[in-house]
Amino acid sequence: MSAERYDAGYQGEPGAYSEQAGWNFFGPSAHLLPCRTLPLLFDAVLEGRARSAVLPVENNLAGTVPRAYELLADRRLFAHAETQVHIDHVLIGRAGAKLDAVTRVLSHPVALDQCRGFFGGHPACEPVAAFDTAGAVAMALEDPSGRSAAIASRRAAELHGAAILATDIQDHPENRTRFLLVDRSPEFDASRARRLILWLQLAHRPGALAGVLHVLATSGANVTKIESRPIPAPRFEYSFIIEADLDDTSRVMPTLVRVEAVALGVTLLGAF
Amino acid sequence: MSAERYDAGYQGEPGAYSEQAGWNFFGPSAHLLPCRTLPLLFDAVLEGRARSAVLPVENNLAGTVPRAYELLADRRLFAHAETQVHIDHVLIGRAGAKLDAVTRVLSHPVALDQCRGFFGGHPACEPVAAFDTAGAVAMALEDPSGRSAAIASRRAAELHGAAILATDIQDHPENRTRFLLVDRSPEFDASRARRLILWLQLAHRPGALAGVLHVLATSGANVTKIESRPIPAPRFEYSFIIEADLDDTSRVMPTLVRVEAVALGVTLLGAF
Repeated sequence: MSAERYDAGYQGEPGAYSEQAGWNFFGPSAHLLPCRTLPLLFDAVLEGRARSAVLPVENNLAGTVPRAYELLADRRLFAHAETQVHIDHVLIGRAGAKLDAVTRVLSHPVALDQCRGFFGGHPACEPVAAFDTAGAVAMALEDPSGRSAAIASRRAAELHGAAILATDIQDHPENRTRFLLVDRSPEFDASRARRLILWLQLAHRPGALAGVLHVLATSGANVTKIESRPIPAPRFEYSFIIEADLDDTSRVMPTLVRVEAVALGVTLLGAF
Repeated sequence: MSAERYDAGYQGEPGAYSEQAGWNFFGPSAHLLPCRTLPLLFDAVLEGRARSAVLPVENNLAGTVPRAYELLADRRLFAHAETQVHIDHVLIGRAGAKLDAVTRVLSHPVALDQCRGFFGGHPACEPVAAFDTAGAVAMALEDPSGRSAAIASRRAAELHGAAILATDIQDHPENRTRFLLVDRSPEFDASRARRLILWLQLAHRPGALAGVLHVLATSGANVTKIESRPIPAPRFEYSFIIEADLDDTSRVMPTLVRVEAVALGVTLLGAF
């Protein structure tokens, strides 16, 4: 356990959208630790370097972040809050660079895919994959020719003292990513929680999932997210991630008891 | 409509796992068209250059392929068959290269994430993101220093005349990707289909999803995949992707009629 601990870790570099989510949770003076990958982010929490992690779970256009819930379940962290960040991509280059001279545009593959209209209108620009948006800015600025640019946030441009070469470059203005705040404590206030995040194992037969959803519906729980996950072995089980909102906080514990009665296994991944 | 048409298009370059899926569908003498991105792959089918597309939909470790089902729904193609490809990553470099000299390892981010044990044991190797596994091989071979390598299939190594520097580098040997064969025809044989792929719009209230799943369960349909998708506007609807296997082929049309009666909207994305 190091002497200095961060309020939270996040995946990416300063200027990443995940960093903005960290500020949403902890305010503008938060101590935030950038981590290269999601597994390294979880390591930072489990090893005590950061008290919590800012975990991106889904984007309204791109869908669920691969392996986000799996890591939450496997590494036994627990979600206590959520926030959303509005994604507003801009094209970033060296000061003095011209959009007409750009031939390589670096960013995370999801961000590149969200700007297909831009690439269609600028056929000289080749999309190039990078691990994260803010890191792509640093890579683009390393190219002295001025032919490289990156797609990332305005904040990433400011941090690097870089120029914004184009704005409004994403296909859909309504572009949001949802983040969970997770830490090692599984404790929550059952008298105040309205959102449950569950990982369920069910028998692989018609009606098993319908039975669980009937229990949730009759408990007044509205399912806001559901995803199946195949389990490679044994062959006859399936697992499901379910997020549900309760209309009455007094129902948290009775709902969990009723779900446990009809599922092969239940893991509570978060409650808030 | 060009004179020559391909049996199918696939995303990636020759040697990609998607190309193997194409051979599963059409045999070893298939005419397959490599496409850089999934949207370009759909363009190839809609413009008549390829008769069908090989669409990756999920990997048992990484989950659903982002936007795969959205593209299927938005572009109005229809799934007629599925296949699975066993993923067996190897490390590929220039002939004569030594593993000890490698400092950059290029691949698709999902493939890099599936080889975390390898990177843990080889800290000198930095993972570098690329659009696809087979394309990463070409990029690695362009580096004359011998310090670049790529993670891709054995077939990609053979096609490039490259050396295999390491095998058994993925964390989990049970690594499979499932592909759908999709084309422009929505016709299917209702007397033979057992698998239904549905895109549903449901009211945003407790019990709406439970109602649909009750209909499926009492129709003898076993849900093998389910994923919710938020709809940005209007606020009070949700959409769901559901794959279900029927135990009796005579139930395809009655099941569809019963589902349509309880959903706000139903789109059949595939049947086979």
